[in-house]
Amino acid sequence: MAGNPILAVGSVAFDSVKTPFGEANRVVGGAATYFSIAASFFTDVRIVAVVGHDFGPNVEKVFGGRRIDLAGLQRVPGETFRWRGEYGFDLNSRETIYTHLNVFEQFTPTIPAQYASSPFVFLGNIHPTLQTSVLDQVQRPTLVGADTMNYWIERTPDDLRAVLKKVDVLLINDSEARELARESNLVKAARAVQAMGPATLVIKRGEHGVLMTRPGGGFFAAPAMPLEEVFDPTGAGDTFAGGFLGYLASCERVDDGSLARAIIYGSTMASFAVEDFSVDRLLRLTQQDIARRFNEFKKLTHFDAV
Amino acid sequence: MAGNPILAVGSVAFDSVKTPFGEANRVVGGAATYFSIAASFFTDVRIVAVVGHDFGPNVEKVFGGRRIDLAGLQRVPGETFRWRGEYGFDLNSRETIYTHLNVFEQFTPTIPAQYASSPFVFLGNIHPTLQTSVLDQVQRPTLVGADTMNYWIERTPDDLRAVLKKVDVLLINDSEARELARESNLVKAARAVQAMGPATLVIKRGEHGVLMTRPGGGFFAAPAMPLEEVFDPTGAGDTFAGGFLGYLASCERVDDGSLARAIIYGSTMASFAVEDFSVDRLLRLTQQDIARRFNEFKKLTHFDAV
Repeated sequence: MAGNPILAVGSVAFDSVKTPFGEANRVVGGAATYFSIAASFFTDVRIVAVVGHDFGPNVEKVFGGRRIDLAGLQRVPGETFRWRGEYGFDLNSRETIYTHLNVFEQFTPTIPAQYASSPFVFLGNIHPTLQTSVLDQVQRPTLVGADTMNYWIERTPDDLRAVLKKVDVLLINDSEARELARESNLVKAARAVQAMGPATLVIKRGEHGVLMTRPGGGFFAAPAMPLEEVFDPTGAGDTFAGGFLGYLASCERVDDGSLARAIIYGSTMASFAVEDFSVDRLLRLTQQDIARRFNEFKKLTHFDAV
Repeated sequence: MAGNPILAVGSVAFDSVKTPFGEANRVVGGAATYFSIAASFFTDVRIVAVVGHDFGPNVEKVFGGRRIDLAGLQRVPGETFRWRGEYGFDLNSRETIYTHLNVFEQFTPTIPAQYASSPFVFLGNIHPTLQTSVLDQVQRPTLVGADTMNYWIERTPDDLRAVLKKVDVLLINDSEARELARESNLVKAARAVQAMGPATLVIKRGEHGVLMTRPGGGFFAAPAMPLEEVFDPTGAGDTFAGGFLGYLASCERVDDGSLARAIIYGSTMASFAVEDFSVDRLLRLTQQDIARRFNEFKKLTHFDAV
């Protein structure tokens, strides 16, 4: 099958989530998990992450039978990263009840030799020095995508600035973009972040969709699909990133057109992720489902000029 | 020139506004003002509103030389409606410092006889019983658009329900839609509001754009234009309504295609309104400016399927 393989580094976790619509305890989560499953619908994924002894048969259940290479998945003694969060009634406010890093605390991404020439690399939301160490272990990729968060923006700004110089596409949410740029106007904030390194900035706005800078200037914007049932927003951003970069990696070239379509594929994948707890909806997903919802996005946003 | 005339009822005011970018005192505002100027770029507007003796030459300055008929503009003794508001740094939070209704307190919309057959009617955000009284004075229009707010949703729910039965297009913001439907999910809220009467619901989400129900089911969504300079959001929603209904009134028919384009014309007009204080940017606007930004919306949102 066609496409460039994509190296994905990040967390695999057990999540416990409470939303107004139900509760899920100790279910599979983690940024690299959502990312890899979503991206694997488009291209080959090489996941680099760590799980504890307790993860057991979940490896096969979640990653098995997909275009996901597990040579870089470290299985070590100790417990898997655990996180518990609760959502308010509007699903936009989230409270973290606990974060037990467990085996993730000592995680050092070791890139298998056969991954060193991966043309696409996704640096999940981990310490910026670990993100840099990943790039030090690979030959110059065609495209480096990265995620980060307010924690690193506030606590390790210099390390973050260092890795941003090597990032082609940065995916962050709107408040993070504003904080990183110290600028409330989103257009100006985007320009300021681009000046730090990333040629392309993808600003995630949750239920309000996505805004992306374009190669020739200007922006591309996509709304989120209006959904009747949103059960659990956990992992939506990582799933978006997986669909976005997975689709891009599957393209012959990264250009204005493929970047715009990638935004829609990312939005498509994210719209599925929130329809059930954990990665459950993604595990049931078919290529037909994806094609259908991609077309729904076209109906949602396109208009004729006359 | 072509198009159906539109009857617009609402407030004309003096606003005093403070934003992080500056201050404007006792400048022209009011929902019917923004609406009428915006709509007049597309069709003939018949404004029904009230001003005090102090409004003076502003009538000519703001409405003169445009497709705006002033036969329904009442000029009475007393002071014009005055409002003062202040915006926070992100421009999404607004605090009302004072509201002096003045001559607007006794406002009774009296529809001139020659307006009774207006094919399009816009009911601005006034007491629902006044909105009903407007409809009682006209022959059944082709299309009735209306705005309302949380104040009427909470205090006069029965009066609001009565007028909603006669409204074709309701334009409200997302929190109002949720409150009116008592439903946090926006898709379900939209269905619930439609069941109250309006075949079409236009949900305004400020800087996050607009969501509209479609005749055949489903939604149309448009982002707001990302702008480098947003000086003053006052009147953006009313300007949107003017562009939306003004364009619709200029069309031969109201259908799925014209409704979608109307959303883009509404968004186009609103994007200009926020670029300066009061109606200043709208007063300087040309048809060329509008056409250019409409095309920018296409670039902002369209993608190719392959």
